[in-house]
Amino acid sequence: MNAYTHKVQYYETDKMGVTHHSNYIRWMEEARTDYMEQMGYSYQKLETLGVISPVVGIECSYKASTTYADIITIKVEIEELTGVKLKVKYTMTKEDGTLAFEGISTHCFLGEGGKIVRLKNEVPELYEAFLNSMNM
Amino acid sequence: MNAYTHKVQYYETDKMGVTHHSNYIRWMEEARTDYMEQMGYSYQKLETLGVISPVVGIECSYKASTTYADIITIKVEIEELTGVKLKVKYTMTKEDGTLAFEGISTHCFLGEGGKIVRLKNEVPELYEAFLNSMNM
Amino acid sequence: MNAYTHKVQYYETDKMGVTHHSNYIRWMEEARTDYMEQMGYSYQKLETLGVISPVVGIECSYKASTTYADIITIKVEIEELTGVKLKVKYTMTKEDGTLAFEGISTHCFLGEGGKIVRLKNEVPELYEAFLNSMNM
Amino acid sequence: MNAYTHKVQYYETDKMGVTHHSNYIRWMEEARTDYMEQMGYSYQKLETLGVISPVVGIECSYKASTTYADIITIKVEIEELTGVKLKVKYTMTKEDGTLAFEGISTHCFLGEGGKIVRLKNEVPELYEAFLNSMNM
Repeated sequence: MNAYTHKVQYYETDKMGVTHHSNYIRWMEEARTDYMEQMGYSYQKLETLGVISPVVGIECSYKASTTYADIITIKVEIEELTGVKLKVKYTMTKEDGTLAFEGISTHCFLGEGGKIVRLKNEVPELYEAFLNSMNM
Repeated sequence: MNAYTHKVQYYETDKMGVTHHSNYIRWMEEARTDYMEQMGYSYQKLETLGVISPVVGIECSYKASTTYADIITIKVEIEELTGVKLKVKYTMTKEDGTLAFEGISTHCFLGEGGKIVRLKNEVPELYEAFLNSMNM
Repeated sequence: MNAYTHKVQYYETDKMGVTHHSNYIRWMEEARTDYMEQMGYSYQKLETLGVISPVVGIECSYKASTTYADIITIKVEIEELTGVKLKVKYTMTKEDGTLAFEGISTHCFLGEGGKIVRLKNEVPELYEAFLNSMNM
Repeated sequence: MNAYTHKVQYYETDKMGVTHHSNYIRWMEEARTDYMEQMGYSYQKLETLGVISPVVGIECSYKASTTYADIITIKVEIEELTGVKLKVKYTMTKEDGTLAFEGISTHCFLGEGGKIVRLKNEVPELYEAFLNSMNM
């Protein structure tokens, strides 16, 4: 899978002169949805089935600051995939290779009325796509 | 009607050290929905009818910069209300009375399938509430 | 200390119809800076000393979704305070008492040139204020 | 000059299911700074001179809604350039060619202490770059 790149925008900085920390959470989403597109099963496709994949938890560490116009490379890896839970890992580096951020997001899958969706049984095509992506 | 107040948050500033200009557009929305609540017809109530009120245009002038922890007072006025269009005016001042921002947003009303809703005929209760609010 | 309240804004929702998860990270900052004001040592005061307090880590769990116009009550607690590190805990509940979010942010303190500031020795007034706030 | 493209992110949508209108203001900035890079005089370069270019006014019309994963093409044109003022025009279209948004931002140039900078005299290299870009 190709890493995702995000260029830091001016509106993403704060008065410390660096990227506001909340934006990395948004870039995790950018990179995760890009990853799904690359693996051939986009988030939109999932939504057309009436299934959503909310974030249920985040853990992250800010390693080095970034700022306006920096190009951030975001490597996405599937950390864990069970029948009902997905853990995605993100490693963000700056152009000179400096590690800027590491994070993990945990997701569940919900269908109509907020019912838990067991991916392996109910959306096997996506389950397989996630599994296969680990070797791409 | 009471003016709305917004305290500038750290995440709303940018590396110039001041509030990023895009946030004023968001504060217009904060103040407008607060105004609707005050006039007794909230935006949520409108949504329960299946009617939305998208922004179709904005015109604004940035008069003085604001920054983290500033308390912004936002005066909202109905500039124009026709059967199908609403124009809302916003005047934002700082604590010392300095004018920071002036803006106007124009809205239409849309129902199921994006059909234009003629407020006066189709949601007369809201139309009256807007009219009455002009004298409050 | 008084809990902080945040009303969910329309621009904070996403197409799932609920608050986008990145906004809770911003509300943590809103509540944390409010807490500092309540304890009598604001973040602006710290900045005038040339000291900043970046977020170095976040851990959080999303427990229940929230949406437009919900009033979120945010309880802030100092989880840990050492000479060089601050951990702050946030508990967010909805109006009916439902737990919506729990999070912890970890902070360091940096002075001129990004040098680590040992709070206890270098900004003892703030260190004391944090300590005292734990019993308020 | 090449048009700029922006892919609508999930976090840019709102509960109407479409892109929140405030994001177009941010995309104007994305496209404007990209334009400056293409013309060979980046906004960062301007900042190193101690000069900033705040937005003093915006006028815009929302023509058609966009949503998650749409690819927006943003054409940037210099509408007016005087010694002290810059007007930039933005035309945003969807993949099928539908016009989504038209906007104009007006900028001044400020130096140390907020003093007005007369671009033509004080930063002639940038003034020329803007002029030349009109024919690129």
